[in-house]
Amino acid sequence: MKASVIGASGYGGIELIRLLSNHPNFDLHAVYSSSKDDVPVTEEYPHLADICPLPLTKIDTEAIKTESDVVFLAVPSGAAASLAPQLAGGHAKVVDLSGDLRLKETEDYKKWYKKDPAPKEFIADAVYGLTEWNRENVKSASVLSNPGCYPTAALLGLAPAVKNGIIDVKNIIIDAKSGVSGAGRGLSPLIHFAEMNDNFRIYKVNEHQHIPEIEQQLSWWNEEVAPITFSTHLLPVSRGIMATMYAPLSKEMTTEEVHTLYADTYKNDPFVRVRPSKQFPGIKEVAGSNFCDISVDVDTRTNRLVVVSVIDNLVKGAAGQAIQNANIMFGFDETAGLKGFPMYP
Amino acid sequence: MKASVIGASGYGGIELIRLLSNHPNFDLHAVYSSSKDDVPVTEEYPHLADICPLPLTKIDTEAIKTESDVVFLAVPSGAAASLAPQLAGGHAKVVDLSGDLRLKETEDYKKWYKKDPAPKEFIADAVYGLTEWNRENVKSASVLSNPGCYPTAALLGLAPAVKNGIIDVKNIIIDAKSGVSGAGRGLSPLIHFAEMNDNFRIYKVNEHQHIPEIEQQLSWWNEEVAPITFSTHLLPVSRGIMATMYAPLSKEMTTEEVHTLYADTYKNDPFVRVRPSKQFPGIKEVAGSNFCDISVDVDTRTNRLVVVSVIDNLVKGAAGQAIQNANIMFGFDETAGLKGFPMYP
Amino acid sequence: MKASVIGASGYGGIELIRLLSNHPNFDLHAVYSSSKDDVPVTEEYPHLADICPLPLTKIDTEAIKTESDVVFLAVPSGAAASLAPQLAGGHAKVVDLSGDLRLKETEDYKKWYKKDPAPKEFIADAVYGLTEWNRENVKSASVLSNPGCYPTAALLGLAPAVKNGIIDVKNIIIDAKSGVSGAGRGLSPLIHFAEMNDNFRIYKVNEHQHIPEIEQQLSWWNEEVAPITFSTHLLPVSRGIMATMYAPLSKEMTTEEVHTLYADTYKNDPFVRVRPSKQFPGIKEVAGSNFCDISVDVDTRTNRLVVVSVIDNLVKGAAGQAIQNANIMFGFDETAGLKGFPMYP
Amino acid sequence: MKASVIGASGYGGIELIRLLSNHPNFDLHAVYSSSKDDVPVTEEYPHLADICPLPLTKIDTEAIKTESDVVFLAVPSGAAASLAPQLAGGHAKVVDLSGDLRLKETEDYKKWYKKDPAPKEFIADAVYGLTEWNRENVKSASVLSNPGCYPTAALLGLAPAVKNGIIDVKNIIIDAKSGVSGAGRGLSPLIHFAEMNDNFRIYKVNEHQHIPEIEQQLSWWNEEVAPITFSTHLLPVSRGIMATMYAPLSKEMTTEEVHTLYADTYKNDPFVRVRPSKQFPGIKEVAGSNFCDISVDVDTRTNRLVVVSVIDNLVKGAAGQAIQNANIMFGFDETAGLKGFPMYP
Repeated sequence: MKASVIGASGYGGIELIRLLSNHPNFDLHAVYSSSKDDVPVTEEYPHLADICPLPLTKIDTEAIKTESDVVFLAVPSGAAASLAPQLAGGHAKVVDLSGDLRLKETEDYKKWYKKDPAPKEFIADAVYGLTEWNRENVKSASVLSNPGCYPTAALLGLAPAVKNGIIDVKNIIIDAKSGVSGAGRGLSPLIHFAEMNDNFRIYKVNEHQHIPEIEQQLSWWNEEVAPITFSTHLLPVSRGIMATMYAPLSKEMTTEEVHTLYADTYKNDPFVRVRPSKQFPGIKEVAGSNFCDISVDVDTRTNRLVVVSVIDNLVKGAAGQAIQNANIMFGFDETAGLKGFPMYP
Repeated sequence: MKASVIGASGYGGIELIRLLSNHPNFDLHAVYSSSKDDVPVTEEYPHLADICPLPLTKIDTEAIKTESDVVFLAVPSGAAASLAPQLAGGHAKVVDLSGDLRLKETEDYKKWYKKDPAPKEFIADAVYGLTEWNRENVKSASVLSNPGCYPTAALLGLAPAVKNGIIDVKNIIIDAKSGVSGAGRGLSPLIHFAEMNDNFRIYKVNEHQHIPEIEQQLSWWNEEVAPITFSTHLLPVSRGIMATMYAPLSKEMTTEEVHTLYADTYKNDPFVRVRPSKQFPGIKEVAGSNFCDISVDVDTRTNRLVVVSVIDNLVKGAAGQAIQNANIMFGFDETAGLKGFPMYP
Repeated sequence: MKASVIGASGYGGIELIRLLSNHPNFDLHAVYSSSKDDVPVTEEYPHLADICPLPLTKIDTEAIKTESDVVFLAVPSGAAASLAPQLAGGHAKVVDLSGDLRLKETEDYKKWYKKDPAPKEFIADAVYGLTEWNRENVKSASVLSNPGCYPTAALLGLAPAVKNGIIDVKNIIIDAKSGVSGAGRGLSPLIHFAEMNDNFRIYKVNEHQHIPEIEQQLSWWNEEVAPITFSTHLLPVSRGIMATMYAPLSKEMTTEEVHTLYADTYKNDPFVRVRPSKQFPGIKEVAGSNFCDISVDVDTRTNRLVVVSVIDNLVKGAAGQAIQNANIMFGFDETAGLKGFPMYP
Repeated sequence: MKASVIGASGYGGIELIRLLSNHPNFDLHAVYSSSKDDVPVTEEYPHLADICPLPLTKIDTEAIKTESDVVFLAVPSGAAASLAPQLAGGHAKVVDLSGDLRLKETEDYKKWYKKDPAPKEFIADAVYGLTEWNRENVKSASVLSNPGCYPTAALLGLAPAVKNGIIDVKNIIIDAKSGVSGAGRGLSPLIHFAEMNDNFRIYKVNEHQHIPEIEQQLSWWNEEVAPITFSTHLLPVSRGIMATMYAPLSKEMTTEEVHTLYADTYKNDPFVRVRPSKQFPGIKEVAGSNFCDISVDVDTRTNRLVVVSVIDNLVKGAAGQAIQNANIMFGFDETAGLKGFPMYP
């Protein structure tokens, strides 16, 4: 199948290039950019010398929707809102990595992203691609809205607890930490190496645009869900996310019991690994891979559940999950092209 | 005044050496080690070449308690429990940086540190040196128990909220992150550079020995305090702590109102800086200094207060606070020897 | 073909696991350790959870030489000297990643490694696996001695200049820098995260055991070669090597001319990328891949050639090159299992 | 004495602020910026909250030259060329941290900096402030040209060898590595954290503008000096420089003999520490301090001298040396305000 990538010069874009280039079923045949035309992608990214011969080409939606079987959008917020509708409805299936097609309530999008949303009906038809929890719909999707990085980590970590009603869903707290690639390739003093090195910042407190996305999915699982508390931090690493999450248990349970529930829940999901009791994952243990590692712990002193979820923000948090969804959309093995082990150390 | 340091080869110890060596009122006259005798400290730490001529000498409690005016203990847990009583009761005042004299309930010490505690009466007389909140007692202390690093960050951040009864003290959650020097100089696979680099770990969930210490001080401020939830993470940095803390507000307040309360509370404390609204500190902004920077934010959607507190774990979290306390114990200016600016970048 | 790894718990060993596990032609069927028996490798390396079900088993040379088609030795210096001869001469081909079989002059080995060498005749038969320059011999090798990490970077970078006689081979200087994984998994104060972070050290000046290895190969290319100057540094990164090399030109040449020579030399080598003029590689641009990127520059003011060579010390510097050699030894495509793109960022 | 800083928002500028603010003899009374007026410096640098109350003010040369006793210029290349002459000739002494007044041959400045030089006579009168080697002239200087960071490390490391004629000065090679603050605060993809983290780059090969500066000073010591080979690399650290330098010995000497020469040379210089034989410094060992640590080693196999020199690029490589020079210019103790220990770890 022929795949193309729009927005190939951002970090999500080049991660798609990395994963698609060695995919047994997808052939990466074109890469597009909104700002460059006919420039070898190796000019932007010398590390692709000799292995990615494609030129960055300017976007031609008509050509793309006929030549590609699947087109991946790795464009900034606001761009997919207009681009995706143009690309859909033709031959190509569309997988969007941005936030533009995730929120069913366009008012939420306007409020949190401060931009004009895509048409409401278009969003209504887009399938939210949290793979492990929406496979059936993903299978038949022609437009796939790939979840955000933080929401992926948070939702995979909370799902078993929320769906099984073992926590008080009105008091969920998510303390999330991400590597700097999550902030995108744009330049700002915040990510000047000299100042981000050996630093740790909290940058969005109670205002991250991933909040409505997390709440949307949680409420689909349990309509009792109240607004969550969600704070995000920047780690002095290139990639990786850890979400440490807290919620009161709504019934007495031991760590072992919660662990069993989680392990059972995810036993058939190739990319979600529930760690043994008392073993907690570091972000390096999934780096470069499509894994989401989860640990759970019950604090008997406070009767609170702590869930720890780690992913690579560029893989399971973006490009990897996008390809995992595309695999399902095209009937390929779900793990095709995604079997790479974490790079350690 | 003549100061000495026991345990001079650990990170707390050499930070004491750094700060005492340029102190206008203290003269660092001797450094002791439990494992070395008559070895120049520059052999352990070449960076002290030409500036610290002292030899590491084996511990002689009788000599120390007569020769020193103040002795700082920077020894591992369990060691001060026996050492401090031997050093006290003489001429020298004792400042202990370990956890051995912090917990008034020896049962707590046994349970959390899994070691034999110091004599209960001795601990009872030791003054808990959270400087900003215990100056009067610190002034007259002859044995000072210096708070732990995490507790310092957490308690300074929570004090105004707890003391003024604006939060539900039965639902405090502390998500703490620390640089690796906080784990001490001992070797373990966990801190092998190749594996800690570009990594982020959660290492103690609901079981850190700082929990009883934080709860003790909180309950002194408000006996309604219930067990806290406290998780600790290791950052891929050498030094620095951020504690992101969550608690439901017990009354409606705006961010501005909480901010005003915090700013008023700390306006006369030279080392606590309450940041302007919407400005959050990164750990680098206090590196090498004795500052504790605090920000507050009210999430109106959840009526929850978020407090962010950052310190340098080796300075305000250890050596700096110890010297700040010693300054007060000897009637010196509280900021003496601690005026160094953060090292940035 | 059935492959096994001895010394699976070191960094070279787990990198072999990572690359062999997704190899189209090799099946990793067993992993051995000198210190552990019947312990899941995931106990040492949780990041392999669910993807590497093999247990670490104690070494049984007889079993290995019959059950495996190829056995990779990733054991410490000195261990392969006795192990390799026991494993050779049977069905299995042997690929040794250590330095024990590299130096044909056993006196050199004794002098630089300060250990007892393997039998001289055994070493004489071992093929030195600097793939790009020894393919014919590698093809027929039954015992392959995999080059060291620094030598790989240095030799690939110097080969065209040395073989074509364009530099004064009596005055070669190599200033090499490596990530910390190159130092191995053993614990020492040198690699305690808190002290290696934000640091840069020079650790072996004129005494690294890779010196005789580099000189041996250089002298095979040009017997005029005099002793080299070689210094090694530790970078605060997990992986990667850059060798910056200096030699006087023996004839007038422009940067373009040298560049053309290099580009022509390596045009058919899939893993050596000669960068365009004036473009210099960073170590991150080859991270996780088997590439060696090279740049050249002529300083007309001094008539000196500067060659910059970067590799990933664990891939092209160890496991990757070992597999590249094994591919050739078994008649597979040279790039099989090694097509992974660099992980960026 | 009243000191002011122009260019207070660059890294050199804020390092001057850090060091001057606790200086016993200088009072930092004003800070100036070319781009901001009447903006608290804490807006640019929140870490200075509560400790630096000064506003950034626009440059008023007339006011500055009368109100200040000394004015430090920490402005970009090209700016001091016009600014310094305007500030000189009045009451204030001028200390320029840029390269604009270093090169006596204005042709060199034009060629290497690609900018218009300051007036030749003005540069002729400026004193080159490599403190340890020019104290007499520094004492009487009214315009001081502070050396570059790389030149400081390189020259201090080479001086004893060059001045004593023990090396072949026609074949000096300097392989230099610097932390990212050396590149300044400007934004560029090169220093985006996600791409600089865990990376190591070579960025200027044979073309760094510090080359003529190093050659100038070397030739003042020995007119036989031929062009040097100088390459610069970027380390994934915030601060620190290591220069590893190579030159053939012109006479037979042992490491001990060279070491003795170096130790004698610098025995009275408080900020140059010659390390014991076989002990080599890491950049962290001088971080935050004004030290330059040097090690030497003779490679008997090649009869080549290796000199390793480390400094903190912002301190001894910029602000620290500037203040060291100012101390001498005003007759203060040379170490005044610069006694801070390295921050370790």
